[in-house]
Amino acid sequence: MAYTAKQIADFLHGEVIGNPDVTVSSFSKIEEGKPNTLTFLANPKYTSYIYETESDIVLVNRDFVQDKPIKATLVKVDNAYAALGALMEMVNQSIPKKNGVEGMSFVSSLATIGKDVYIGSFAYIADNVIIEDNSKIYPNSYIGDNVKIGKNTIIFPGVKIYHDSIIGSNVIIHSGAVIGADGFGFSRNGNVYNKIPQLGNVIIEDDVEIGANTTIDRSVMGSTIIHKGVKLDNLIQIAHNCEIGENTAMAAQVGIAGSTKIEENCVLGGQVGIGGHITIGKNSQIGAQSGIISNIKEGSELLGSPAYPVKNFFKSSIIIPKLPDIYRQINVMEKELAELKRKMETTD
Amino acid sequence: MAYTAKQIADFLHGEVIGNPDVTVSSFSKIEEGKPNTLTFLANPKYTSYIYETESDIVLVNRDFVQDKPIKATLVKVDNAYAALGALMEMVNQSIPKKNGVEGMSFVSSLATIGKDVYIGSFAYIADNVIIEDNSKIYPNSYIGDNVKIGKNTIIFPGVKIYHDSIIGSNVIIHSGAVIGADGFGFSRNGNVYNKIPQLGNVIIEDDVEIGANTTIDRSVMGSTIIHKGVKLDNLIQIAHNCEIGENTAMAAQVGIAGSTKIEENCVLGGQVGIGGHITIGKNSQIGAQSGIISNIKEGSELLGSPAYPVKNFFKSSIIIPKLPDIYRQINVMEKELAELKRKMETTD
Amino acid sequence: MAYTAKQIADFLHGEVIGNPDVTVSSFSKIEEGKPNTLTFLANPKYTSYIYETESDIVLVNRDFVQDKPIKATLVKVDNAYAALGALMEMVNQSIPKKNGVEGMSFVSSLATIGKDVYIGSFAYIADNVIIEDNSKIYPNSYIGDNVKIGKNTIIFPGVKIYHDSIIGSNVIIHSGAVIGADGFGFSRNGNVYNKIPQLGNVIIEDDVEIGANTTIDRSVMGSTIIHKGVKLDNLIQIAHNCEIGENTAMAAQVGIAGSTKIEENCVLGGQVGIGGHITIGKNSQIGAQSGIISNIKEGSELLGSPAYPVKNFFKSSIIIPKLPDIYRQINVMEKELAELKRKMETTD
Repeated sequence: MAYTAKQIADFLHGEVIGNPDVTVSSFSKIEEGKPNTLTFLANPKYTSYIYETESDIVLVNRDFVQDKPIKATLVKVDNAYAALGALMEMVNQSIPKKNGVEGMSFVSSLATIGKDVYIGSFAYIADNVIIEDNSKIYPNSYIGDNVKIGKNTIIFPGVKIYHDSIIGSNVIIHSGAVIGADGFGFSRNGNVYNKIPQLGNVIIEDDVEIGANTTIDRSVMGSTIIHKGVKLDNLIQIAHNCEIGENTAMAAQVGIAGSTKIEENCVLGGQVGIGGHITIGKNSQIGAQSGIISNIKEGSELLGSPAYPVKNFFKSSIIIPKLPDIYRQINVMEKELAELKRKMETTD
Repeated sequence: MAYTAKQIADFLHGEVIGNPDVTVSSFSKIEEGKPNTLTFLANPKYTSYIYETESDIVLVNRDFVQDKPIKATLVKVDNAYAALGALMEMVNQSIPKKNGVEGMSFVSSLATIGKDVYIGSFAYIADNVIIEDNSKIYPNSYIGDNVKIGKNTIIFPGVKIYHDSIIGSNVIIHSGAVIGADGFGFSRNGNVYNKIPQLGNVIIEDDVEIGANTTIDRSVMGSTIIHKGVKLDNLIQIAHNCEIGENTAMAAQVGIAGSTKIEENCVLGGQVGIGGHITIGKNSQIGAQSGIISNIKEGSELLGSPAYPVKNFFKSSIIIPKLPDIYRQINVMEKELAELKRKMETTD
Repeated sequence: MAYTAKQIADFLHGEVIGNPDVTVSSFSKIEEGKPNTLTFLANPKYTSYIYETESDIVLVNRDFVQDKPIKATLVKVDNAYAALGALMEMVNQSIPKKNGVEGMSFVSSLATIGKDVYIGSFAYIADNVIIEDNSKIYPNSYIGDNVKIGKNTIIFPGVKIYHDSIIGSNVIIHSGAVIGADGFGFSRNGNVYNKIPQLGNVIIEDDVEIGANTTIDRSVMGSTIIHKGVKLDNLIQIAHNCEIGENTAMAAQVGIAGSTKIEENCVLGGQVGIGGHITIGKNSQIGAQSGIISNIKEGSELLGSPAYPVKNFFKSSIIIPKLPDIYRQINVMEKELAELKRKMETTD
C-alpha cells in the first residue's frame, strides 16, 4: 500500500515542501534511507543525513531550517517523532490481530473470558481468572488464580503472572516478565533466614508497558502498585511494596528496593539503583547508573553513586582522573610551604 | 477467619497491651492500617504511624515504649518481624496446595515422581528426572534430563532447569529463573571465540530461595554450588564454577563472575558486581552497587566501585562533589605560594 | 570410556611428560583434582595446585616450567585452554542429540521444517517460520510469525523469539532469552507517553551465543543487528536499533541503550552501561561497571563511570578513599599560607 506526501501531510495536519505526489510504502532510518520509504528527523545529531538520504519523504519539525538543497520531499509537522508514531500506529493497526482460544491451551472452568480474547497454545489460565474483551494472551504464558486482566491488554509469550495480580486495560507486558513473585522478605534468626510469606499482590493500572524479563514482586501485605501510564523497559526489578507514580519511565536494568515510592513523571536512566523505604519526589530525573540512598525532593536532577546534582557531577568527573596529579601537587606544595615556614622562622 | 489479640499473643508467646478481645482477620501495613487487620512495627522509621493507625492490633518488639496514647491493641513479642512471619506462615499454610499431575504435562516414562507431587500443564519432565515427595512443579516449567529435586520444593511457573542439576529439599525457585545454562567459557583464537563445552552442573542445597529471572550457570567441570540457606533475589547472575556459602543473601541484580567463592553469612546489596576467581570472606557485607576486584577478608564492610571500607566511603562521597572547588582552591594556593617564594627570595 | 595420555597428546598434537599409559575418563578442576581425571592449567593464579593435584593428567602450555616434582602426567600443548575445549567438545559430541517433533508441540501448517530438526513439547512454531536442517527447538519455546532459523542452531527451553526475527546458523540461544520484543520508544505529549510502534526486526548472524534471560529488542524500523561470532552472557540488554560488531563479547548484565553501535572485537566487562546513539570503536575494552556516555575511539581501554583510561582509573581509585584526609591537609595548608602571608606583610 502506497501513500503520497500529500495524503500523509493531510493525515498529520502537516505541510508539504517539495513534490506532493511522491509515494512511499514503508519506513527507513534517515542514515539508511531507501527510495520509496518515509523517514524522520527528530534528533539534531542526525541533521546532516537529511541532505543525503535516499528516502523520498522526511518528516521534520516545523522549525526545521534547511541550509542546503534536499532531494526528498519534506512534511513539516509540530512534532516529527510523534507524527512518525501516528503513522506507524496506522500501519500497526492494519496487521491482523490474533483471536480465539487455541486448542492446546488450558483454561480453567472457573475462569471468565471476554469477547474477542486470544489465548494461545500452552497458555495456562488458572481458577477465577477474569480476562476482559479484546485482550491477547500469547502462548506459553501463565495467569495464576484470581488474576484480573482488563480490556485491550497484550500479554506476550512466556509472561508469568502470579495469583491475585490485577492488571488494567491497554497494558502491554513483554515476554519473560514476572509479575507477582514473592518479595524478598526474611526475618533473621542467628545466621538463618526465615521466610516471611508474601500475602499481598501486584496492581498494574491502565496504559502501563512492561519490558521483557522485568520483575515486579508482590507485596508482603497490601499491594505493589504501578500507576497509570508508567513505562518500564527490560530487566527492571521492582521490589515488594513499591509504588511507582503515574507516567514515570525507567530505562533498562533499573532496580528499586522494597517499600520505595517513586512519584509521578519521574525519569530514571538505565541501571539506576534506588534504596529501600525512600521517596523520590515527582518530576525528578535520575541519570544512568546513579545510586539513591535517601529521600529526593521533587524536580531533582541527580547523577552519580551516591547521586548529587547533575551540574556538579560532570565537573567533578573531570577532576577525578586528575586526582593523582593533584595529590602530587599538594604534596609538593606542602613541602614548599614547610620550607618557607622554616625560612621565615630562620629569618625572624 | 478471625483471631483475638489474646489468641495471637498466646500463639506468639507475647503480651497483650490493651483490649485482648479485639479481633482481626487479615494484615495491613502500618501506614495503611485498616480496621479488622493486624499490622506490625519493626522499622523505627515507621514509629510515628503507630499513633494513627486504624489497624486493631499492632505487633511490636518488647522494648517498644509508647510516648502517646495508642488506639490499637499492642501485642509485645521478642521480634515483631519474625512474629509477623510466623502468623503469615500460619495463614499461608491454610491455603490449599496443588496436587497431582495435570493432563497436558509431559512426564518421561523414565522419570521417578514421589508422593503428593504437583506437575502442572505444559511442564516438561525429561528422562531420568527424580522428583521427591511433596514437591510442586508449576506449569510451563522445564526439568532437564537427570535432574534431581528433593522434597517440599516449589518450582514456580516457567522455571528452566538444565540437565544434571541437583536441587535440594525445601527449595523455592521463582518464575523465569534459569538453572544450569552454559557458563560463558570460550578460548580465543585470533579474534574468534571457540566455545568450551560446559560439562559440569549446578548443585542447589536445601532451604535455598532463588528469585525471578535469576540465572545460575553450570560449571565447565565439577559443580557451581549454592549452599544451604542461601537467599537470592531477582535478576541475579551467578557465573560458572562459583560457590556461594551457607546463609549468604544477595539483593537483586547482583552479578558474580566465574570461579568466585563467597563464603557463608555474607550480605550483598543490590547491583553489586564481583570479579572472577576471587574469595569473599565469611560475614562480609558489601553495599549496593559496589564492585569487588580482589580477595576480601572475612567480616569486611565495603562500599564503592572499586570498594573500600564503608566508613570512609561516605566521607569521601561528601568530598567528591566539592572537587571542582577544591581544585580551584589548590590552584589559588599554588599561585600564592609561588608569590610568597618569589617575595622571600627578593627579601633574601 | 577411558583415554591414555598418549592418545590425548596425539589428538592434541601435544607432548607427554611422564607416564604415557595413564588413563582418564572425565575432567576435574585442578584444585579439586581426582584420580582418573584430566585437568588443565591455563590461569597462572592456579599454578601452585599442579604440584598437589590428584588428577592423573594435566594439560599445560608448552612454556610451562615446573620447579618441583609433579605426580601427574603432563600433556604440553600450544594453548592449554583451547586444547581442553577441543577435548570437551569431543566428549560433548558423543552425547546423543534430540531429534524429531514431539507430539505436544504446535507447528503451524505454514511453517517449513528442515531435516533432523528437534521440536520439543510445548514449543510453538508460528506461521511462515523456516527452521533449517539440524536445528533444535527445546520445549516451551516460542518462535513467532515469519522467523527464520538457520542450520545447527540450538534454541534452549523457554526462549521467545518475536515475529520477523532472523537467526543465523550455529547460533546458541539460552533459556529465557527474549529476541525481538518492542524497543522502548515513546513520544511524549505533556506528561503522557505515546507508544511508537516498533516495526523493525532483529537479525542475529551465524556463530552467535546469547545467554540466559538476555533481551534484544527489535528496532523501530530497519534492524537491530548482532553480527557473526558475537558472544553475549546472561541478563544483557541490547536496545532497539543497536548494532554489535563481529566477535564482540559482553559479560553478564551489560546494558546498551538505543541506536548505539559497538564495532568488532570489543570486550565489555560485567554490568557496563553504554548510552544511546554512540559508537564504540573496534578492539576497545571496557572494564566492568563502567559507564560510557560519548563516542569512544578504536582500541580504547576504559574504566569508571563515566569511564576514563584504565591506567588512570586505578591510580585515582587509590586517592579517593584518602580524599577526606587530603581535604583536611589542604585546609591546614591554606591556613598556614594565610599565616605566612600575614607575617610577610607584617615583616614588609
